[in-house]
Amino acid sequence: MNYKMICRTIGTIVILEGVLMVLPAVCSLCFAEWRCALIFLGSAAAAALAGLALSAPFRTCDRTIYAREGFVIVGLAWILMSAVGAVPLMLTGDIPSPVDAFFETVSGLTTTGASILTDVTALSRGGAFWRSFTHWIGGMGVLVLMMAILSDSTGRSIHIMRAEMPGPVVDKIVPRVRDTAKILYLMYIGLTLTEVVFLLAGGMSLYEALIHSFGTAGTGGFGIRPDSIGSYSPYIQWVITVFMLLFGVNFNLYYLLLLKRFRRAFRSEELWIYLGIVAVSVTAVAINIAPVTDGAGKTIRDAAFQVASIVTTTGYSSVDFNLWPGFSRTLIFLLLFVGGCAGSTAGGLKISRIAILFKCARREFRRLLHPRSVAAVRFEGKPLDEGTQTGVMRYFALYSLLLAAVILLIGNEPFDLETNVTAAISCFNNVGPGLSAVGPMGGYAGYSVFAKLVLSAAMLLGRLEIYPLILTFSPLTWRKR
Amino acid sequence: MNYKMICRTIGTIVILEGVLMVLPAVCSLCFAEWRCALIFLGSAAAAALAGLALSAPFRTCDRTIYAREGFVIVGLAWILMSAVGAVPLMLTGDIPSPVDAFFETVSGLTTTGASILTDVTALSRGGAFWRSFTHWIGGMGVLVLMMAILSDSTGRSIHIMRAEMPGPVVDKIVPRVRDTAKILYLMYIGLTLTEVVFLLAGGMSLYEALIHSFGTAGTGGFGIRPDSIGSYSPYIQWVITVFMLLFGVNFNLYYLLLLKRFRRAFRSEELWIYLGIVAVSVTAVAINIAPVTDGAGKTIRDAAFQVASIVTTTGYSSVDFNLWPGFSRTLIFLLLFVGGCAGSTAGGLKISRIAILFKCARREFRRLLHPRSVAAVRFEGKPLDEGTQTGVMRYFALYSLLLAAVILLIGNEPFDLETNVTAAISCFNNVGPGLSAVGPMGGYAGYSVFAKLVLSAAMLLGRLEIYPLILTFSPLTWRKR
Repeated sequence: MNYKMICRTIGTIVILEGVLMVLPAVCSLCFAEWRCALIFLGSAAAAALAGLALSAPFRTCDRTIYAREGFVIVGLAWILMSAVGAVPLMLTGDIPSPVDAFFETVSGLTTTGASILTDVTALSRGGAFWRSFTHWIGGMGVLVLMMAILSDSTGRSIHIMRAEMPGPVVDKIVPRVRDTAKILYLMYIGLTLTEVVFLLAGGMSLYEALIHSFGTAGTGGFGIRPDSIGSYSPYIQWVITVFMLLFGVNFNLYYLLLLKRFRRAFRSEELWIYLGIVAVSVTAVAINIAPVTDGAGKTIRDAAFQVASIVTTTGYSSVDFNLWPGFSRTLIFLLLFVGGCAGSTAGGLKISRIAILFKCARREFRRLLHPRSVAAVRFEGKPLDEGTQTGVMRYFALYSLLLAAVILLIGNEPFDLETNVTAAISCFNNVGPGLSAVGPMGGYAGYSVFAKLVLSAAMLLGRLEIYPLILTFSPLTWRKR
Repeated sequence: MNYKMICRTIGTIVILEGVLMVLPAVCSLCFAEWRCALIFLGSAAAAALAGLALSAPFRTCDRTIYAREGFVIVGLAWILMSAVGAVPLMLTGDIPSPVDAFFETVSGLTTTGASILTDVTALSRGGAFWRSFTHWIGGMGVLVLMMAILSDSTGRSIHIMRAEMPGPVVDKIVPRVRDTAKILYLMYIGLTLTEVVFLLAGGMSLYEALIHSFGTAGTGGFGIRPDSIGSYSPYIQWVITVFMLLFGVNFNLYYLLLLKRFRRAFRSEELWIYLGIVAVSVTAVAINIAPVTDGAGKTIRDAAFQVASIVTTTGYSSVDFNLWPGFSRTLIFLLLFVGGCAGSTAGGLKISRIAILFKCARREFRRLLHPRSVAAVRFEGKPLDEGTQTGVMRYFALYSLLLAAVILLIGNEPFDLETNVTAAISCFNNVGPGLSAVGPMGGYAGYSVFAKLVLSAAMLLGRLEIYPLILTFSPLTWRKR
């Protein structure tokens, strides 16, 4: 195990987080929140110094890393980032409790959007900005950001990228990892800024436009109004709907579009399944909620917004879907699992995994009928190798067992079963809201310290797709070979 | 496709069902229910004649069958048996509605125990006997019974056995399929009669003892009192608890015991995981319900009864666990999935599948760290071949996707989400009761005709472990090679 390189990389990440904290400080200054600005600047400096202390001694270390270092770096970096990011929220008095601040930061970085706040309007401007900005940082991944801006990535940093990026198969867009990371971030920034412009055009202030663009881009869902997006104009709601869906698409496709390889981009099987699920769900919900919603326009808008929000695991709401009729609530419940496309900022199982699971399951029919037949499982026009198939199925088995464990661990909380089960599912899939008491107008404030820690772990497990976090704490990883 | 052999076998099954209907007729006679007795005798005769008409023309047909014929025979036989078995319940006036009678018979044969009855005491004695007897018939499998008593099974009837018997791997206990079937049924009868004796010793009438032994042996759960087992004595409750657990054990182990190969029987990994899950769950529930239950004796009895009932997918209840504290309800919710051991009469995922899923998932950690390492997944002391691992994982993927489909299809029913979701899970895993409105004191009467048919399909899918039913209706099966 290359301990030096682990310390060096994690230290760099903490420095980077410190640098990123300058933004909320600037935001605080703009709103004349002097104390708040000072706290963010102080936290930024402290983080930078701590990071420097951790990384500087190893500036010239051997940079060779393998898969296991990749997992450990990602696992430790995310835990440390969450702890460091929680500090200014505590100091500003926005979230005084350490556990609550940790939960909220984990929820931000993992782009979950589950909140322990009972009154989001009481936040300082700087605090609210930082809280939403963590969505943006976590969405594309902070280690990917590090690789994009620092030139010291080795040829092996693909191990870090694989561990942090979601989806069953992670590949570089271009041969060099650093260039891939740079392209991903440039597209991410471009798309985020485009949304900011559209939101400004709808009459939002720059502050609000940034907050909601961060929340959409990371598919997070933190807002600054008690009713989330409910009191914004239909135009704003549609803009956010469209951008939620855009950020749920595999970023590789946007790169293909930039290269003008339109045909290849639009031949993506995952894209069409994703759009199909969205279209069918929106239609079904619209039909179901029509009798209890005023007018066709609002019906379609409400259906589209909520479906897009849940499928992409964003978690914004324009209406309290907890009050919807049974069928729509059931559909929302099932959509909590789905997630967007692989290689997007969305959480959940991911469309490609569900498609591969379906195809693998269907493959068994043929094998049972003709035991000696050999037929490949095809996805995205290519035969899937056995390793990927097995990997997806093993992931799903582990995902299910861990979800059951999370449900059991928070089973003793003083809420009804629907609340606890959907809270576990929602956190584990990085959605944010669930149903009943954790519905869009509810929250996680009533959970015990133990449950908040369990749900924080669930959010990290979900965002990092399980393995990095478990491997970080597995003796298997640290054992000498 | 050997159509003749399919007709012949299915015809034989219907004859067999007719013969079995003589028992409820005898029961009716004992209680002087003349009309009821006549209906059962008439149904028996009609079934026998219909079965004869279906099978007689093909008495001398080519008996060669392959896997696909095995699946089709099992799939069609179970649907037909359910329809035929529903007829006397309709005619006696016990369950006048055809859909309700079909649902109840499917629930009986699949050993689910979900009921559309609102007043179980209103049933005729003969009707109640038949209803519970279907549990016993379905528990070990009616095709296995056919193979046990008829001498015309071919060397290939293992295909039928594999399709009907639950568990990831079905093997013959002894070289000949017919002998295996005979041994299984002899042990099944022996264990059932032992329970009858124990229940008689507790003061039950022979009628009640038979009803409840059928319900326990098949891990079904139909009873004849509105509060299930709640108003019986502690002794009776303990006897049923123990026998529920006994019928959740792989019958191969009992054969090993008969052969006095104790060491091999008690080395079964699945057995110990099963007992471990039961012990831990009983302890956890007992601690959780102690404050709301009178006395240590009742606390342990209630915990043990309900855990045994749910784990083995029987579905009897000695107390309304729907009113238990949150943690116990959560545990019950998760136990709905588990099921007993493979090769038992229990439904659910089965302990061995869950153990294999866990081991496969864990295997991925090692592969991620050391991509080229080769380490076998071991179960029951032997390395598991890749085919079994893949088969279990594919089964789980299909199981999950189908469960989601069932939940969605009944999503529009006028019940809360907890009711619908647990109803779907409970029927699919052949448990019987769920939570909320389908809890132990509730029932399925309020569901629409559509939902009852969906849930009937779910029960059949669960009992037959998905493949036979889907393959029966798949063009893939019927296509000429």
